[in-house]
Amino acid sequence: MRIFRLIPAVLLGVFFMPVVHAQSAADSIVLRRMADDILRKNAAYENLRFLCKKVGSRLSGSAGAEKAVIETARMLREAGADTVYLQPCMVPHWVRGAKEEANITLSNGKTFTLKAAALGNSVGTPAKGISAHIIEVKNFAELDNLGKAGVEGKIVFYNYPMDPTNVATFRSYGQAGAYRGNGPSMAAKYGAVGVMIRSLASNVDDYPHTGATRYNDSFPKLPAIAISTRDADYLSEALQKKQVTKAYFKTNAEMLPDVQSYNVVGEIRGTEFPDEIITVGGHLDSWDLAEGAHDDGTGCVQSIEVIRVMKALGIKPKRTIRAVMFMNEENGLRGGTAYAEQAKKENKKFIFALESDAGGFVPRGFGVSANPDQAAKIFAWKWLFQPYGAGDFTSGGGGADIGPLKPLGTAMAGLSPDSQRYFDVHHASTDVFEAVSPRELNLGAIAMAGLIYLVSEYGL
Amino acid sequence: MRIFRLIPAVLLGVFFMPVVHAQSAADSIVLRRMADDILRKNAAYENLRFLCKKVGSRLSGSAGAEKAVIETARMLREAGADTVYLQPCMVPHWVRGAKEEANITLSNGKTFTLKAAALGNSVGTPAKGISAHIIEVKNFAELDNLGKAGVEGKIVFYNYPMDPTNVATFRSYGQAGAYRGNGPSMAAKYGAVGVMIRSLASNVDDYPHTGATRYNDSFPKLPAIAISTRDADYLSEALQKKQVTKAYFKTNAEMLPDVQSYNVVGEIRGTEFPDEIITVGGHLDSWDLAEGAHDDGTGCVQSIEVIRVMKALGIKPKRTIRAVMFMNEENGLRGGTAYAEQAKKENKKFIFALESDAGGFVPRGFGVSANPDQAAKIFAWKWLFQPYGAGDFTSGGGGADIGPLKPLGTAMAGLSPDSQRYFDVHHASTDVFEAVSPRELNLGAIAMAGLIYLVSEYGL
Repeated sequence: MRIFRLIPAVLLGVFFMPVVHAQSAADSIVLRRMADDILRKNAAYENLRFLCKKVGSRLSGSAGAEKAVIETARMLREAGADTVYLQPCMVPHWVRGAKEEANITLSNGKTFTLKAAALGNSVGTPAKGISAHIIEVKNFAELDNLGKAGVEGKIVFYNYPMDPTNVATFRSYGQAGAYRGNGPSMAAKYGAVGVMIRSLASNVDDYPHTGATRYNDSFPKLPAIAISTRDADYLSEALQKKQVTKAYFKTNAEMLPDVQSYNVVGEIRGTEFPDEIITVGGHLDSWDLAEGAHDDGTGCVQSIEVIRVMKALGIKPKRTIRAVMFMNEENGLRGGTAYAEQAKKENKKFIFALESDAGGFVPRGFGVSANPDQAAKIFAWKWLFQPYGAGDFTSGGGGADIGPLKPLGTAMAGLSPDSQRYFDVHHASTDVFEAVSPRELNLGAIAMAGLIYLVSEYGL
Repeated sequence: MRIFRLIPAVLLGVFFMPVVHAQSAADSIVLRRMADDILRKNAAYENLRFLCKKVGSRLSGSAGAEKAVIETARMLREAGADTVYLQPCMVPHWVRGAKEEANITLSNGKTFTLKAAALGNSVGTPAKGISAHIIEVKNFAELDNLGKAGVEGKIVFYNYPMDPTNVATFRSYGQAGAYRGNGPSMAAKYGAVGVMIRSLASNVDDYPHTGATRYNDSFPKLPAIAISTRDADYLSEALQKKQVTKAYFKTNAEMLPDVQSYNVVGEIRGTEFPDEIITVGGHLDSWDLAEGAHDDGTGCVQSIEVIRVMKALGIKPKRTIRAVMFMNEENGLRGGTAYAEQAKKENKKFIFALESDAGGFVPRGFGVSANPDQAAKIFAWKWLFQPYGAGDFTSGGGGADIGPLKPLGTAMAGLSPDSQRYFDVHHASTDVFEAVSPRELNLGAIAMAGLIYLVSEYGL
């Protein structure tokens, strides 16, 4: 019998496995029932169709965002939520204004039009636009080397491609994102008059990708545009051949006063621990160039689907589940901030939050940020997700909107869809309903419903 | 010390792991180098663009198939294959003829046009088409219940949808496929005059999906068409409401005499064991309705990419690698059969064959059919594929074209791409270049190159 005392962990693991699995067999049946219903009803896809085609783009402060609040509240009621309410927050109101213009003049006298889009939050140009010499830099080090002497009075063109060799495309996005976020102010520091960036896109095509820039108040605010990756390649080649005499662009962007907006919350009250709150959400706002299908219509309709499928199957969660359509993720995070502020005032435990904001692609698993005990509990469930292709649980993850819950000690997770196609369409006019596969969307919803169910059943 | 004798497997596993990983660390670097090159060069995608846009559809016996032979031979030479040659095979030559027509007449006298495509290998209708009463059956049991009394002189409409609840879409395809394959002869047995089937598609849209039917020579050969899933739903509803007075269709399909065609083979000769042959391939023929992008242009260009990346990086495989573009997978398997016939005549060992014929989607892993020792060896490599999202190795797999190698004792594997979107486009006019993601295609090529490299290095 000595052996049992020496290696209990190994052997107990083996002996107890059937018990663990007997417990979990019931869970696997619940997940299977939810999966069947989600795949058969295809309700998330139909909600997404409405959000994309009948509401459309939903930039914070826009009429589309306002309509999206009303329509997703309706969807949550129709999904069967016990309570649906709006949570107020003031949001920035940036407008693109009339369509941008951009071109370069070549040494042969001809003009080449660039497909461009103003960066979100950026200021507009003077009415006559900006016309100046243009210089290309590959990165901030090159900009620093040029210094004031090389930059002053010029348009700076940041041409930093997303690294194709990262399998995790979000890593490449993060690297290249520095130029969209900080590029304008870094160029302003050296006296530049305007900024162009290569679109943050994983493919070479003709669609500019917008997204937020962040001005550093120490420097003048420069107008800034993204140009399509194909045009970035063209411009770079023309500059190398010294064929570009000047560049021009005009934008009509403007930051207007903040306006009233809302998060939309739909709740199923927990039967045993109603004061333990589980949050599941996506963000309702989108950029203005397209329908915000993958970013983040899919996360919204998947969160609604979690509510719908539980109600449809008569599942009564022990803990309270809140599906939240967060407002203003893209250029302010006011919704996520307001949600956490309200949470601090409630005398409840916000035990877990899950966000889907990486596209409605086929799920691979979840990224989890939690204390070791909570993480161990969550990771022990991963075999339940393998039948749905979503068994890849990794450490670290969450979402921008649920991030402000961190001081409350909330355990967090982010759905991890496959990321290969996301940055083809992200923040561009190609992020439309047609780019979403219903089956991929539904599998993501299944994974989310499964994880929310397990947390609601067993707590953390 | 007693414990070591009692539980050696557990502890040796732990102790030996560093050694195994030291060996494999070198392999992981080779895989990483191949991955970087494949992702940077994007050569598979450019070859696919050519195959789809400059060659187009490639049904066996067609001018497109002939051109595809010439062009992929060129691609293999440009990829750096030591030897490129054509392997003759006679192939069936089925032609669709002029575009099909199909409609139903409603009780209000109106005609509703059905979007239809003749099934591959099917016979044509008489010149005036077929006009008859139509009956719907959900499955063969319903057909049998109707019997001769209910079926004779009628058109049989098989309306068996792909089951949406199978996460593995190939399972649903296999189930529904029985009606495309056997439906015409089963209906002929009871005296039907023609057959319509619901397209084998996972989505509801307006595109008919063709594919091979197989006549049983004991019964008359009935003309047979597939109609779009949306039209199948419409027809079913109209039949339930007893609104359909008759159905009509006309096809001009015809099986012509066999014609000469070829497999295309590109080879890198092994440095140490040149007589151990590793086969990697896809099929070059496609259906005639589209560009055969996912089915199976992607498998072809991925196989060429295996050759290209090894040559580009100066990797000299110890065993001989053959990239094979198999002809006539879709309606005859003559290419795969010819390859195996030739293999039997060669005094060489065909140790391993890998096929990619499940679409150019993001890879999940491989399905492996091998003896236990070989399988254990292959499965031990799977951690090397996890960084590329392709670490899901499962038992059972291969491909139609490599199947005939089985009597030679060849170990087999099939690339397992994610299957969620495949049956949206499979065999339909929507299977075009634009439906392929370059990054997903490249990750598949990386997984294939990695597995081929490991087998070439270590044998089986």
